Amino acid sequence: MLKRTSAIQSFLKCSSNLTPQYTAEKYALKRGDYGALTQDDQNHLISLVNGKGIVGEKELEGYNVDWMRIVRGKSELLLKPETTQQVSSILKFCHSKNIAVVPQGGNTGLVGGSVPVFDEVILNTSLMNKVEKIDPVSGVVVAQAGCILDQLNSELAEHKLMMPLDLGAKGSCQLGGNISTNAGGLRLLRYGSLRGNVLGMEAVLADGTIVDCMQTLRKDNTGYDIKQHFIGSEGTLGIITKASVLCAALPSSVNLAFLSVNAFADVRRLFSRARDDLGEILSAFEFIDNSCLVCLEENLKLTPPVDQSPFAVVIETHGSNSTHDFEKLEAFLESVMNDGTVIDGCVAEDSQKATNWWQLRERMAESLMHDGYVYKYDVSVPLDKFYELVTVMRERLGEKVLRCVGYGHVGDSNLHINITTPAYSKEVDQLIEPFIFEWVSQVNGSISAEHGIGFKKTQFLHLSKSAEAIAQMRLLKNAMDPKNILNPYKVLPLL
Amino acid sequence: MLKRTSAIQSFLKCSSNLTPQYTAEKYALKRGDYGALTQDDQNHLISLVNGKGIVGEKELEGYNVDWMRIVRGKSELLLKPETTQQVSSILKFCHSKNIAVVPQGGNTGLVGGSVPVFDEVILNTSLMNKVEKIDPVSGVVVAQAGCILDQLNSELAEHKLMMPLDLGAKGSCQLGGNISTNAGGLRLLRYGSLRGNVLGMEAVLADGTIVDCMQTLRKDNTGYDIKQHFIGSEGTLGIITKASVLCAALPSSVNLAFLSVNAFADVRRLFSRARDDLGEILSAFEFIDNSCLVCLEENLKLTPPVDQSPFAVVIETHGSNSTHDFEKLEAFLESVMNDGTVIDGCVAEDSQKATNWWQLRERMAESLMHDGYVYKYDVSVPLDKFYELVTVMRERLGEKVLRCVGYGHVGDSNLHINITTPAYSKEVDQLIEPFIFEWVSQVNGSISAEHGIGFKKTQFLHLSKSAEAIAQMRLLKNAMDPKNILNPYKVLPLL
Repeated sequence: MLKRTSAIQSFLKCSSNLTPQYTAEKYALKRGDYGALTQDDQNHLISLVNGKGIVGEKELEGYNVDWMRIVRGKSELLLKPETTQQVSSILKFCHSKNIAVVPQGGNTGLVGGSVPVFDEVILNTSLMNKVEKIDPVSGVVVAQAGCILDQLNSELAEHKLMMPLDLGAKGSCQLGGNISTNAGGLRLLRYGSLRGNVLGMEAVLADGTIVDCMQTLRKDNTGYDIKQHFIGSEGTLGIITKASVLCAALPSSVNLAFLSVNAFADVRRLFSRARDDLGEILSAFEFIDNSCLVCLEENLKLTPPVDQSPFAVVIETHGSNSTHDFEKLEAFLESVMNDGTVIDGCVAEDSQKATNWWQLRERMAESLMHDGYVYKYDVSVPLDKFYELVTVMRERLGEKVLRCVGYGHVGDSNLHINITTPAYSKEVDQLIEPFIFEWVSQVNGSISAEHGIGFKKTQFLHLSKSAEAIAQMRLLKNAMDPKNILNPYKVLPLL
Repeated sequence: MLKRTSAIQSFLKCSSNLTPQYTAEKYALKRGDYGALTQDDQNHLISLVNGKGIVGEKELEGYNVDWMRIVRGKSELLLKPETTQQVSSILKFCHSKNIAVVPQGGNTGLVGGSVPVFDEVILNTSLMNKVEKIDPVSGVVVAQAGCILDQLNSELAEHKLMMPLDLGAKGSCQLGGNISTNAGGLRLLRYGSLRGNVLGMEAVLADGTIVDCMQTLRKDNTGYDIKQHFIGSEGTLGIITKASVLCAALPSSVNLAFLSVNAFADVRRLFSRARDDLGEILSAFEFIDNSCLVCLEENLKLTPPVDQSPFAVVIETHGSNSTHDFEKLEAFLESVMNDGTVIDGCVAEDSQKATNWWQLRERMAESLMHDGYVYKYDVSVPLDKFYELVTVMRERLGEKVLRCVGYGHVGDSNLHINITTPAYSKEVDQLIEPFIFEWVSQVNGSISAEHGIGFKKTQFLHLSKSAEAIAQMRLLKNAMDPKNILNPYKVLPLL
């Protein structure tokens, strides 16, 4: 499968002229009252990682800007620790000197959570990439935070195991980043969330304290589950250095079907049917609207294996018995084609074809960026209102935009809605926000299904979270990082 | 299936002469510096729940003592609120008067977490038993905390859904208690933990603040997941009043096999084989040792469907296609019987038989209590050391005890080890504790797999949790309940 690293290269070619729109200046943000990094501090910090650091804003360009190249900070120091002890020493020092730190994994996030806002020191985990243990009996992997998802999967495959999550960025995203953003991805409906699959964790607190919760057992009800603090808190409460994860069995039988559907009501019905008929073998149910398919063809020359139609659906099964799985899939497809739910469809005969078809879904983000500027939204919307948001936004934006497309994980009520223009347009931006978030809030959706809050969405958090829940977030942040040196300006609304 | 309520009646008959061993006196505990409950306070609190309360230590006997009748407090007031608002009013008042409160659900816990230690006011959730909504499309149920697990399942079954957890106490345990103790149970290996399946929650904080996190979507990465605080914290951080839970599809095909195995090494091998061959349809893998079977026969006249052997294994499958499922199970059984992993076995032909066989597993706890006094342990132990603990304890205790038995969830590395004597023996108690916890700690197990810490295990928490993690627990408790009025003397080690 195409790795996001190549997607990044391809993207950089087509969008090197983009100017980051999300900077401290945009919000007239004032730098927090942090210590200034002296030459002595720099030297000391670099010595803590045996020289494995980079100095200078220019030298750090790739690390100061996010993957989409629309969020940018101005850090002058990046550190690449190799051990938990080094992470602890760095934070202990920064804490004592009141220096702000931004943790950074693969930097594939889409809400600006992994780049600095001002001059925070970047603590990059890419050298913490050791797989410490794979236990084929329990199916548990113990690995450092910097392990790349794809590489982890390669090692696990030798033991007939795989990570319980899969996402487009797998070629560059790291385990620590996955966990700290509570990554969901393509197969959550089958393998569940990281909150259940992360069995143990080691993390370093703001003051350098190492918290060891490295359990590898499925059941452990001994007091509060402290590791949950670090799942999904985007590096604002601590830095994850290691984790143990319950893997899934590598399926011996994988099937992929690509289907054409006429209306979104049919997509919804198809999902209910797939859940009933495919039952325990259903592993993904993704949809792509026709505007997406047009974009893939125009920008990446990728064509779908079926005739164009309003909606395409990708259904995947993972199972342990290929005869049984194929029988289930065949009966299901026959039934939904006979009753007209599906108008056209095909099943991949080999894994190469399956890989090619997955690219239509996985390279969507890349494909859109070729248009110029992408306004990217990742929301949860109850299925009865799901696609309405795309229609509403299209009407609202009309000719002012190039495209307004919808795709995503129907099985998780997770819609990716993306809007493109040749270059950033403030008018379009203001037509979209806060309207889109308010719309989602009104239908009891979530303004961030899986991307998180990061830097870009803090001011909209109240639309998905009650005031009392936000107050509890602040309480926790103040208790765990009273100096607010860990990933400041992120997740929590600025006061 | 036999409900624990009948188990309780049956038990009460046989053990009414038991004296609770776990009381404040046992540990020479001093009552916290809480306000004394005046007559006016009582009257006011009872008025807050429209008179739905009980007054007097004698009248509260059944609520002051735990299910096992070995932990006892001396509360003089029990309140049965019906609404979240009432829970809030109670806590607001108690907070202002510095009155301690113990939340109580079905009171089926096994570590004394749901009974008072001194005179804490009991806040019993049994009247908060409304199922607010069942959505057949998303599979999400919204229900109040006092809903009984079995009754929830009955309502869900009408929509072809079921709760994602199952445990012996289902006839009396409540949703709120299940979540606040992070209940695991029989089918965790298939349906995952409550940390992933609880999608939303409403809880009331120590000061009466209602925290609304009532999301019903699978993906919601908007800031810290505050509801995780209340999962598994045994009512010490807030009282859960409502939750939304992702249900599982009710399987259209269920199979149950009862197998005899000669050695624990074979049980382990059988588990690996079941996972490989039954794959996605495996829903439970339980083991019962021969001493358990003898006890079931002696105390409850229950006999296994196969010849006596050192170990019995119960394997269950849940699937969507009975032909496929039976083919998988048949091929698996043939293979493990042919190669000698299994020496005898049978498959339930009907659901009545399956129900009867499940009783052998589910009535184990009840059966043991007929012996007199039960020393009950619930630990996680890596599978390569799993049964060794039972052997070690048998050698250590010899003729001083009636039985030392092992059973539990092999699929989750979760061993229930139980020891019985005709009456409580301090000598036996001291031979078991802390030895058993230290042994578990040395093999990197967990001293509480699913039962929690409650009142009984606080002094051993350090054997499963690092000092830094315990410090984080205290930090959270102090931040969320600085007056320590919620379920005091529980979970956190006493200072």
